[in-house]
Order: sequence, then structure tokens, then C-alpha cells
Amino acid sequence: MNILITSGGTSEKIDDVRFITNFSTGSLGKRIAETFASSEKVDKVFLLHGRNAKLPESEKIEKIPCGGVQEVIETIRRVVAENKIDAIVHSMAVSDYGVDAAFSSRALSEYLAKQFSGANMGESLADEEATADLIENMITNFEGYSANGKIRSDVEHLMINLGRTPKIISVFKEFTPRPVIVGFKLLSGVSKAELIDVAHALLLKNECDYVLANDLTSISGENHTGYLIDKDRSEKVFKTKQEIANGIVETVCTLCEERAKN
Amino acid sequence: MNILITSGGTSEKIDDVRFITNFSTGSLGKRIAETFASSEKVDKVFLLHGRNAKLPESEKIEKIPCGGVQEVIETIRRVVAENKIDAIVHSMAVSDYGVDAAFSSRALSEYLAKQFSGANMGESLADEEATADLIENMITNFEGYSANGKIRSDVEHLMINLGRTPKIISVFKEFTPRPVIVGFKLLSGVSKAELIDVAHALLLKNECDYVLANDLTSISGENHTGYLIDKDRSEKVFKTKQEIANGIVETVCTLCEERAKN
Repeated sequence: MNILITSGGTSEKIDDVRFITNFSTGSLGKRIAETFASSEKVDKVFLLHGRNAKLPESEKIEKIPCGGVQEVIETIRRVVAENKIDAIVHSMAVSDYGVDAAFSSRALSEYLAKQFSGANMGESLADEEATADLIENMITNFEGYSANGKIRSDVEHLMINLGRTPKIISVFKEFTPRPVIVGFKLLSGVSKAELIDVAHALLLKNECDYVLANDLTSISGENHTGYLIDKDRSEKVFKTKQEIANGIVETVCTLCEERAKN
Repeated sequence: MNILITSGGTSEKIDDVRFITNFSTGSLGKRIAETFASSEKVDKVFLLHGRNAKLPESEKIEKIPCGGVQEVIETIRRVVAENKIDAIVHSMAVSDYGVDAAFSSRALSEYLAKQFSGANMGESLADEEATADLIENMITNFEGYSANGKIRSDVEHLMINLGRTPKIISVFKEFTPRPVIVGFKLLSGVSKAELIDVAHALLLKNECDYVLANDLTSISGENHTGYLIDKDRSEKVFKTKQEIANGIVETVCTLCEERAKN
């Protein structure tokens, strides 16, 4: 049985020196990888991990570093094409946004002023919503500095326009035969009901077998509350990182074996 | 002799899960700290380091983790107030920009449209520069989401307004008696002449004793070209991380001893 695990946080480049990332440490992904590796049923674990993620040591684990979302997607496609992957556990904290452009507030303001000083602009300003559409189109398409080199730090206000990244989890639908898929949903300070709702919606939308739902406010070192949700919305509750890792490994291995029989 | 070293990269929060940081690994700062610690002349090294910075192991080195620029400044002031610091080596890769606000492009566009649909706006649009001033003032003061919690990922374009952070290096001027100060300047893909010019200007502006000038394109693993510039603009050239560390330790210790004699 071969398992693909994503772990840690993605990093989206602003320029050659700066990037946007998240506080993910990869601790849980590391634990899950170790727990899979310690199972006799598992032959190999591919661990795609972000910069600065905590890393396990095991001969069964192949560690593959990744940066931004696009690189993660390409790497997943390559690993799945080159290996028979029985299950994917997608615990990586993925940037929802990549950097579309960076520019000074001054450059954007001068550009907008130029457009608005144009001859025919007066009338369209009468309709507030149409004006908002017009402005949003200008702002989101405004080209700033290129992401090559380092942005000089002599502008007073730097603005970054972030666009949605593709959802890594939706890529898994491409693969046949379908591996067992475990998605993750992390929210912050919501009710348990909302957390389960959002996680179950993610499961249905992306055709996952399971989703591990957790809340930032219920994570503190080894203590880590997680709900493993299945298609029928039933849940298994775990209270520590190791319980989560054990629960995922057991559940995934069982489902892989069932599928192998059929 | 007590040395304060800053190392690694700062991290500026966007919200509870996302932050902006840089590719600094803290490798050079770690090497400098180790080299100071191995000198008989040095009693203690305070190493202020960013998240994910590489860390040395030595009984002489006190490691102090820091996040954003404000936290680094407060920590430096505390360490200098509580200890006699003979020299400061400021190798940290500091964010030039902190997060002032985050908002959707839609929210900003609707706000601007509302302002421009106002009755008296027609006339002021005639003057392009005045309009740009007006727009820039609106954009840079636009309040977005608070940095508490996690920004929901359901907006199409997220915009971040980044404002200049205070210069950590300028804080060192506050301290009496003045420690020996070594600043760092990292540029990317510039000529040696420009690099030295910029580094020397930094030295004069911030009253440093030395500045280590280096270029991103001349750093690759242990190979690391650095120019240690003094007030008279004379330079010592180093080719590896260890050469840089040795050069800084030797130069700093010599100057500290000279000052102690006077």
C-alpha cells in the first residue's frame, strides 16, 4: 500500500525575497506520515511538504519539498502518474490566494485618476454599482512590479493583489482508479455544528471519503481536537495528534483493504 | 563581552493563520553566533531569531524567538536595558512592510465608487494629480478585515495594504554607551559599485561602525560573497559564510577592545 501525504504550509512568492505563508508547522502531517510508515500494511509514504515543515525520519518515507500551490499540484500529478497511490491524505495548509500583482498605492492611484479624468467618465459615475464594477476591473487587472528580483523598499505603501489559487483537493478527482481521499478543513473559532457543516460540504464537493475537521482554537501542542467525518456525516472524535494519526491510518487502511477485495 | 545578534526573517501577520515573511534561513546569523560563542573574549551571545531560523547549540547563546518588527524592536530594547551589550550584529532580514489592512477588491471598489458618485466630486476630477492624491488617501486609509481570526476565503480578490515598518537599525542610535554596530545590506542582482554605495549610505545614515554588503545572486550554500564596509568606505572581501563570520567576529572584537582601552 502506497500513501501520499501533503503536509506543512504552501508559500506564495511576492518577489525573490518575500512570500506569504501560514503558521502551519506540519506537526500533524509528520505524525500521520510516521504512523502510516510504522504500519506493516504500508510499503511507501510520499510526503509532499512545505518549507519549514517538521519532517519525520523513516526509510519508508520519501520527502518532497514544495513551494506554491501550482508546484504542489504538479508534484502530486507526477507522483500519482509514476506510482500506484492507494490513498491521499491532504493535510497541507494551502494558500487560498496567490500573488497576482504587487504595486505601490501611488501607482494604482495615479492610474485610477488618469482613467477618471478621461472625457467620458462623468456619466458612468452616476451609477454606483457600474462604477464599482469598473473600478474593480481596473484594480484587479492593474499590473505592478514583476515578481522577479526584489521590490525596492522606497515606496510608502505597497499593495498586493491576491487572486484565488486552484483547489488542490479538486485535482484528486482526476485520478483513476480513485485513491482513498482524506481532506482536511481548518476553521477558527466557529461552533462545532458549523465546523461539521463546512467539512461535510467540502467532502461532498470534492468527493472525499473522509474529511478531518478541526478548529484553530482547539489546537495546543499535542492536544488537538479533530472530527473525522464520512459521507454519511457520522463522526469519530479525537483529542490528540496521535489519536488523529491513529484514527486516520486505521480508517484509511480498512477502506483500502475493502476496496482491494471488491 | 556580550554580543546581540539578530538572525533569520521577521514575520508580519495578515491574520491568525497567514503571514508575510522572507526566504532568510538564518544560516549566516547562526554561523556568526557560533563563531562569537567560540571566542574566549565573548561571555554571552543573545540571538534574536525569526520563526524557522536555523539555530545554534551553545551554552553561551541565549536564543530569543521573535515575530514581527515591533516585537523585535521591543525585545532589543529589553535585552539592552537588562544587559551590558558591547556589540550588535544585525543580520536579520527585516520586513520593510507590515500589514496595515486586508480587504476584498470588491469592498474597496464599492467604497471608491460611493465617494466618486458623491455630488461634489465632478470638479476635482479635472485635476489628475489632485485626484490621485485623493484616491491614494482613500485607499491607504481604507479599513478592511481585522487581523483577528482567519479571513474567509470566499472573496475573489484579496488585497493587502502594506505600510513601511520602522527601521530596526535606527533604534540602535538610542543606546548609550553606543555598542559597536554591524548593519547588513542585501540587494539582488546589482553591480558591486551600487551595492557598496547603498551599503555605505546605510552605514552613514544609521551611524553603524560596519555594514556587511551582500547580493542575493552571490549566495549559494556555503559560498557567500560579502563586503565588510567601514566608515571610510574601505572594504574587506569574504567568499564564504565562515569567512564572513570570522571577519565580523575579529573586526568587532578588535574595535570593542580598542574602545575599552580609551
